[in-house]
Amino acid sequence: MSTLELHGKQMIGQSIAAAGEAGLYAANPASGERLQPAFHEATQAEADQALAKAAAVFDDFRARSQQARADFLEAIAEEIEALGDDLLTRAGAETGLPQQRLSGERTRTVNQARLFAQVVREGSWVDARIDRGDPQRKPMPKPDVRRMLMGIGPVVVFGASNFPLAISVAGTDTISALGAGCPVVVKAHPGHPGTSELVGRAILRAAQRCQLPDGVFSLLQGASHELGSALVRHPETAAVGFTGSLKGGRALYDLAVARPDPIPVYAEMGSINPVFVLPGALAERADGIAKGYVQSVTLGTGQFCTNPGLVLGLRGQPLDEFTQAVQEAAAQVTPSTMLHAGIRDAYRAGMERVRATPGVAVVGESAAAADDAKTQAGVSVFRTDEATLDANPHLMDEVFGPSSVVVDCQSPDGMERIARGLDGHLTATLHGTEADLRDYAALVRVLERKVGRLIFNGFPTGIEVCAAMHHGGPYPATTDSHFTSIGTAAILRFARPVCYQGFPDAALPEALRNRNSLGLWRLVDNELTREDC
Amino acid sequence: MSTLELHGKQMIGQSIAAAGEAGLYAANPASGERLQPAFHEATQAEADQALAKAAAVFDDFRARSQQARADFLEAIAEEIEALGDDLLTRAGAETGLPQQRLSGERTRTVNQARLFAQVVREGSWVDARIDRGDPQRKPMPKPDVRRMLMGIGPVVVFGASNFPLAISVAGTDTISALGAGCPVVVKAHPGHPGTSELVGRAILRAAQRCQLPDGVFSLLQGASHELGSALVRHPETAAVGFTGSLKGGRALYDLAVARPDPIPVYAEMGSINPVFVLPGALAERADGIAKGYVQSVTLGTGQFCTNPGLVLGLRGQPLDEFTQAVQEAAAQVTPSTMLHAGIRDAYRAGMERVRATPGVAVVGESAAAADDAKTQAGVSVFRTDEATLDANPHLMDEVFGPSSVVVDCQSPDGMERIARGLDGHLTATLHGTEADLRDYAALVRVLERKVGRLIFNGFPTGIEVCAAMHHGGPYPATTDSHFTSIGTAAILRFARPVCYQGFPDAALPEALRNRNSLGLWRLVDNELTREDC
Repeated sequence: MSTLELHGKQMIGQSIAAAGEAGLYAANPASGERLQPAFHEATQAEADQALAKAAAVFDDFRARSQQARADFLEAIAEEIEALGDDLLTRAGAETGLPQQRLSGERTRTVNQARLFAQVVREGSWVDARIDRGDPQRKPMPKPDVRRMLMGIGPVVVFGASNFPLAISVAGTDTISALGAGCPVVVKAHPGHPGTSELVGRAILRAAQRCQLPDGVFSLLQGASHELGSALVRHPETAAVGFTGSLKGGRALYDLAVARPDPIPVYAEMGSINPVFVLPGALAERADGIAKGYVQSVTLGTGQFCTNPGLVLGLRGQPLDEFTQAVQEAAAQVTPSTMLHAGIRDAYRAGMERVRATPGVAVVGESAAAADDAKTQAGVSVFRTDEATLDANPHLMDEVFGPSSVVVDCQSPDGMERIARGLDGHLTATLHGTEADLRDYAALVRVLERKVGRLIFNGFPTGIEVCAAMHHGGPYPATTDSHFTSIGTAAILRFARPVCYQGFPDAALPEALRNRNSLGLWRLVDNELTREDC
Repeated sequence: MSTLELHGKQMIGQSIAAAGEAGLYAANPASGERLQPAFHEATQAEADQALAKAAAVFDDFRARSQQARADFLEAIAEEIEALGDDLLTRAGAETGLPQQRLSGERTRTVNQARLFAQVVREGSWVDARIDRGDPQRKPMPKPDVRRMLMGIGPVVVFGASNFPLAISVAGTDTISALGAGCPVVVKAHPGHPGTSELVGRAILRAAQRCQLPDGVFSLLQGASHELGSALVRHPETAAVGFTGSLKGGRALYDLAVARPDPIPVYAEMGSINPVFVLPGALAERADGIAKGYVQSVTLGTGQFCTNPGLVLGLRGQPLDEFTQAVQEAAAQVTPSTMLHAGIRDAYRAGMERVRATPGVAVVGESAAAADDAKTQAGVSVFRTDEATLDANPHLMDEVFGPSSVVVDCQSPDGMERIARGLDGHLTATLHGTEADLRDYAALVRVLERKVGRLIFNGFPTGIEVCAAMHHGGPYPATTDSHFTSIGTAAILRFARPVCYQGFPDAALPEALRNRNSLGLWRLVDNELTREDC
């Protein structure tokens, strides 16, 4: 079967199933064209089978060496590359995203898999801790206690619509869960079922090449809430990864916490990513910041979790010059295709609600008209003031798409007051001089409590996949501020400690034996070391 | 005021308040005597004040150096020691626990505070990660990204009844939260309000000595669900620590996850701690295991989270000999006082329910009768078989108190089948030879998925407070299997990552600057190092 001959069916481990109706089609948002084939919607029984298979192979999969799991992640990267440009063609047709962007996203996706492979192969992420016993200790002998992280169990992943490769079927949730030793059941995003099938097949080929047990990965298609709900409620599901809307993430969270045995839901639900343009920076380079800002707002047609939706600056001539530059940059933005008509409609409604708010003015818009037939959106930047923002809290809600609001603050205190009133966000950005940073140190302290990542003189879009990245933040940015969904620390979501007391060396997992044959960094009697013990 | 002149009031930071009714008394379970003074119940307004103070000082407190926070924990240990034996006298009167046990628990409590002080002073627990930038990277410059853990915000702690020192006002939750830089509001357990007041005063003296801001610690008294509910729902509460019953923990969890902004509840809710007595061990030393088992069941009058409530062995003569030895050891157990009449009544009801189950026989009981007037309980060990266990799942429920059930399994498969059917527990124990461990490797794999800690040839009671300890486990042992409530990793519950991108060195937290002046272990460009960068 050529890569583009899609079967439109469920992949329950290595088995193909199609008990449900074949009623799900992808559509090309740039043309409105319905794309073939029809995809079967997964049934509840198929969801059961996928999770039963995942649960059945969990012990086998987690017992594989870290080396074996790393090989699997690298094989996934290779198999995705082997799909060639057919993958980008299908992804472009299903999402309207340009080929260049998708090519870059594919690079990020395979690099991400290879980076996790390195982390898993090196192995110290298991946080091995050894406290050696002392039978002579008084008044009580000291037991030998050792612990390490181990995979939490079968993980259900909900693919995101806006990154059809990097945060979807073989995205950060799947890769980090597999790396931790957890079987994965993905519910494909209904916006790109064909892309999902192609990537799912690549993962299954990789699993076969690596001789992994059948059930380590499954892919289900479907658009219904019932399917998502069944997956979250399933007794074998141990954790859930999700990237999407606040409404969707909260619904899954509410289901998970109401289970007889609650499970964690790691939902990344977006953010308005406020940008603070401080006076020194505004005086020095209003024009450059304005251009960078408009570019960041419109990246991916504003469909990133990190597009900046709010700018705060001090009222006055420098801010007027900034908005003038925004106006000029915005005019040049060519409208582009959104992921699908539903998102475009929601964007338009949100944007119109901002526009209709008394006290809000349009600052800049694309000069060219958006083509409705191509599901396009142009940029819209608005301007308002503190009092209007106070009176209209909805201006702080995320409008998913290329829209943003500039707020004239009365004073530094006003700016800090608005910061204090912020909900949790993924990021906050400061543009400033080093003197600004000193003058606004209190603002930085406030923002540390509000967000997961603070950016200085940059923009929040363009997330570096690395060890120090934190793509998370207090609710409602995510449902669990302890964890990141991007970067290598994402693996920690899907592992929990298991502790062994008094075990003979030979019966311990290799990572915890006296001889450190894996060369891990381990905390031995409170000292970090790579030595044997 | 001498330490034993209790005021019976709320300590809202350094302020004393008593707006509520003075209707709460402790009682001596060994005599039934009501203890003076009457304690005022905290009002909703007082709860608000405590959390408002905590929130107001959070930025100040978290900005203190790790050294300063370590000094505070050590000062707490000193101030608790300075309370002298008055503390043990009051704790003994309120809980019926023997002085020797309380003296040992005090040692554990102050050692625990000092161990956390060491961890905080050393500082590497913040998991600093640095990925240095590369402006020349193609196609996109690589940003400089750095992250570390920071306190999550004000923490509400519910003291436990069964460890009035080690898991109460200055227990593991409070100490780990303060160590992470979080202000703490404790709701004292109504069973030992006087002990709580004494320890609370010690913490406040330590805070004063260390010149910490007023509000870093508050103590509220009360027995009402309304007070607990108000604390969990309070908008300033960022996390909750709890040790107690499944019913109580789940109720707090349900409140927390239903908030507009859900917060984590770290509830440790107990367990039946199954013990597997494998054939080799049974053949070698049935008698010794039986004695150790009865001792472990009756430690603290069975009021530990880790008392073994279930023993599984293969039917046959060796198990008969084991139960014979259990009978002899049980007969010698002197009945002892439980924490209060409510717990004793619940214990008795639970124990009677086991006894009344058809197919369950009494194996061993204290020869001496329990004295009702002294709220005593003797030990009760029962015996049943696989079929009865299958038909009566309630036999797997925790009975809080000195009661336990021995199950005759038909076969190794039957034993493994029962293990597969277990809910989440804190611990599981295996008694065996090294040959048993090899023969029952599959059972160990099953138990790894069910519990937080596996013990070989020991007993689960007596928890070592160390880096490798994991006192946690899958639900319903806890509400979050990622974290431990005992041992130094407990600090991770109350911290979340914050990430800085593109910040000038001088504006970064000290732990993330190029010069590693704190000497932390840091992950720099994926390599763990204590060097500057």
